Amino acid sequence: MTKSRIKIVEKILSENDHMAKANRQRIDAANTYSINVMASPGAGKTSFILATIHALLDDKIKIGVIEGDTAPVTIDSDKVSDAGVPAVQINTGGECHLDALMVGNALDQMPIKSLDLLMVENVGNLICPAAFKLGTHSNILISSIPEGDDKPYKYPNIYRGLDVLIINKIDLLPYLEFDMDYFKQGVEILNPGLKTFTVSCKTGEGLDDWLSWLKAKIPSTQS
Amino acid sequence: MTKSRIKIVEKILSENDHMAKANRQRIDAANTYSINVMASPGAGKTSFILATIHALLDDKIKIGVIEGDTAPVTIDSDKVSDAGVPAVQINTGGECHLDALMVGNALDQMPIKSLDLLMVENVGNLICPAAFKLGTHSNILISSIPEGDDKPYKYPNIYRGLDVLIINKIDLLPYLEFDMDYFKQGVEILNPGLKTFTVSCKTGEGLDDWLSWLKAKIPSTQS
Repeated sequence: MTKSRIKIVEKILSENDHMAKANRQRIDAANTYSINVMASPGAGKTSFILATIHALLDDKIKIGVIEGDTAPVTIDSDKVSDAGVPAVQINTGGECHLDALMVGNALDQMPIKSLDLLMVENVGNLICPAAFKLGTHSNILISSIPEGDDKPYKYPNIYRGLDVLIINKIDLLPYLEFDMDYFKQGVEILNPGLKTFTVSCKTGEGLDDWLSWLKAKIPSTQS
Repeated sequence: MTKSRIKIVEKILSENDHMAKANRQRIDAANTYSINVMASPGAGKTSFILATIHALLDDKIKIGVIEGDTAPVTIDSDKVSDAGVPAVQINTGGECHLDALMVGNALDQMPIKSLDLLMVENVGNLICPAAFKLGTHSNILISSIPEGDDKPYKYPNIYRGLDVLIINKIDLLPYLEFDMDYFKQGVEILNPGLKTFTVSCKTGEGLDDWLSWLKAKIPSTQS
């Protein structure tokens, strides 16, 4: 990159950090816990969000979802709305990630003050979303078994910034070559001691541990 | 995007187009056929390239591979080298796609004049690579069954610019919900009549049709 391009990128990221702080203040003021769900396309972000919604609605936890897509489609936000939860769709207009300004605009349309949990589904991409803070409390990556066990080595930046890793689609392990030790070693180098849950959103396996962790983070569930 | 950012993006893309034309001239002068292999992370780009290498080496077709990664790893280029084929690794330094300048620099290290086929493996990403021409003859996307049947609807730009679509991992169809008609309808809207091959790089199913198509494109195999 040329010096002028580096300066432009630094300015964009600095402006984004400023907006992310403003988003966090709004979310904290509403006493809401918030997560930024990132993943490669098709790793299961929407299935994970839907499984979390279905489990937490029984606990009377009020949830909202912001859905990011590069195209003007409402496939995912329709699924969330069908689950009885308010959803705001962001169309990034071809951009490869959400940024804090987009999330701030979506918050304007979200009944944030009445929510216990806000889930943001980022654009499917293992590279660009890693650079843009959104103002959420936790950065979560969903990595799925069919993607292969070498992903931490090839896409290290996104693993470095994580608070939680979800390893999804473990129901497919019998049909694929996936060396879990090799995968986890790669993660450990980048992000030692990273909180990790191994799940199948299809069968429900492993989701209870994730839900217990999440519920312990939601302010309104604490006595 | 602001007007100044749009101007910068337009300038970058225009410079890239210029470099892509220069790359094409070099590749054409060498009487080499070239493909740009794009996909989501873990869709099977490297497996597809390796399967193609193994099949074509029997036909004495001389192949070279340029491997793009965002991190300084040589996992894929080592696999290609192990298959007896010259490989040049590009580390994009965190950038989310290859561009024509990177490929031009890699061509400097590649024995292009002795090659019949040049395969470029792009960075795993369904968004950013779509905007950057590399100078190759064909843009190829590998879409894999575990990613789900809604990907053409969610990532339309990359499907619009394709010459060939490879639907990979069809050996996993029995274990997943994937509506092939819905997927193909989405592709047809974006890119009518797109040449499509349905394969499993694991079992070899469907690869013969792809190889026949490819061999017919390689100048040195024509009598």
